[in-house]
Amino acid sequence: MQKGLLLVVSGASGTGKGTVCKRLLAESSTLFYSISATTRQPRAGEKDGVEYFFVTVEEFQKWIAEDKFLEYAEVYGNFYGTPIHKIEERLNHGEDVLLEIDIQGALNVMKKRPDGVYIFLLPPSLEELSNRIKGRGSESPETFARRFQAATSEIATGKKYQYVVVNDTVDSAVEKIKAIIAAERCKVNRNENLFENLLAV
Amino acid sequence: MQKGLLLVVSGASGTGKGTVCKRLLAESSTLFYSISATTRQPRAGEKDGVEYFFVTVEEFQKWIAEDKFLEYAEVYGNFYGTPIHKIEERLNHGEDVLLEIDIQGALNVMKKRPDGVYIFLLPPSLEELSNRIKGRGSESPETFARRFQAATSEIATGKKYQYVVVNDTVDSAVEKIKAIIAAERCKVNRNENLFENLLAV
Repeated sequence: MQKGLLLVVSGASGTGKGTVCKRLLAESSTLFYSISATTRQPRAGEKDGVEYFFVTVEEFQKWIAEDKFLEYAEVYGNFYGTPIHKIEERLNHGEDVLLEIDIQGALNVMKKRPDGVYIFLLPPSLEELSNRIKGRGSESPETFARRFQAATSEIATGKKYQYVVVNDTVDSAVEKIKAIIAAERCKVNRNENLFENLLAV
Repeated sequence: MQKGLLLVVSGASGTGKGTVCKRLLAESSTLFYSISATTRQPRAGEKDGVEYFFVTVEEFQKWIAEDKFLEYAEVYGNFYGTPIHKIEERLNHGEDVLLEIDIQGALNVMKKRPDGVYIFLLPPSLEELSNRIKGRGSESPETFARRFQAATSEIATGKKYQYVVVNDTVDSAVEKIKAIIAAERCKVNRNENLFENLLAV
């Protein structure tokens, strides 16, 4: 059986990766979301064990010490991390796992998992990026300025990824990511068994 | 503008690459067939300049001398070659070009064009491969035996390609190749302009 794909979707703040990933998960029965752990406060409507595992700083540091993270990072004063155990289990069962993580985290995962599929989402324009960051409404003007500047400087990091997808519409971004998943499943290095099985008598 | 993709579809004899490529071309408005030159006799219904450029051995050798081929090879006593000029023209206009060539030819193109997309078609089973080679009806028992043995020994060559697609049904093979095309268009190294355009003010 073919191992599942570790799909890493990332992008600067405000590129809409949350929306794209939600749609992708809703439309793909073989794709599962890797739930991250975080020390930040839940936003309205967020539930522990659904969007995130909400943990204390003490708990988070205990998990670090126990080597329970594929990666972890501090972003805007909060910790975020990807628990590795559940991911491996799914991949070994041929299920695909989606990691929706920030750039810093994705770069760390790249080093550990070169077999992953790394997709960088781009906003269609800087104007649109600015609108999206503003549209969240949860930021002060200072936070906005900091996030916008961080986001634009983060965009160049996308060149380190394998794939780049412009999020001009959620539909087209989701279709492109689905194509990437289908294509990656056809990669020769993910299908060595195919040749052996075919030629074995 | 993004350059077109050079799509190379190849596979052992009898894997049905002709049928798959025909369907792919019919369904993709941006994909164009690269017409090969050959010294073999036209089969029933084949027209010069449509399936192939049918040329004499003398003409073919003149083209070789004039460096007009991306690759050429002798297969079963006949020459086949890929004229390069028309291909480059299309790629530079952002159009994709499909090369449907034998394995020997594809391996030569790989060396010259590492930016190409190399897809290897596999038959679903050796039994099916045997049936398909027999089904052509145009071969003597000796030709059949030779082609079947060549085909099975060629299959392992597929590991040198980037992608492998099992031709279990034409529909599924065509869908997979379409996904590969869409995914390749998202490759970061094919989209360097995207980053520059986005960040330029």
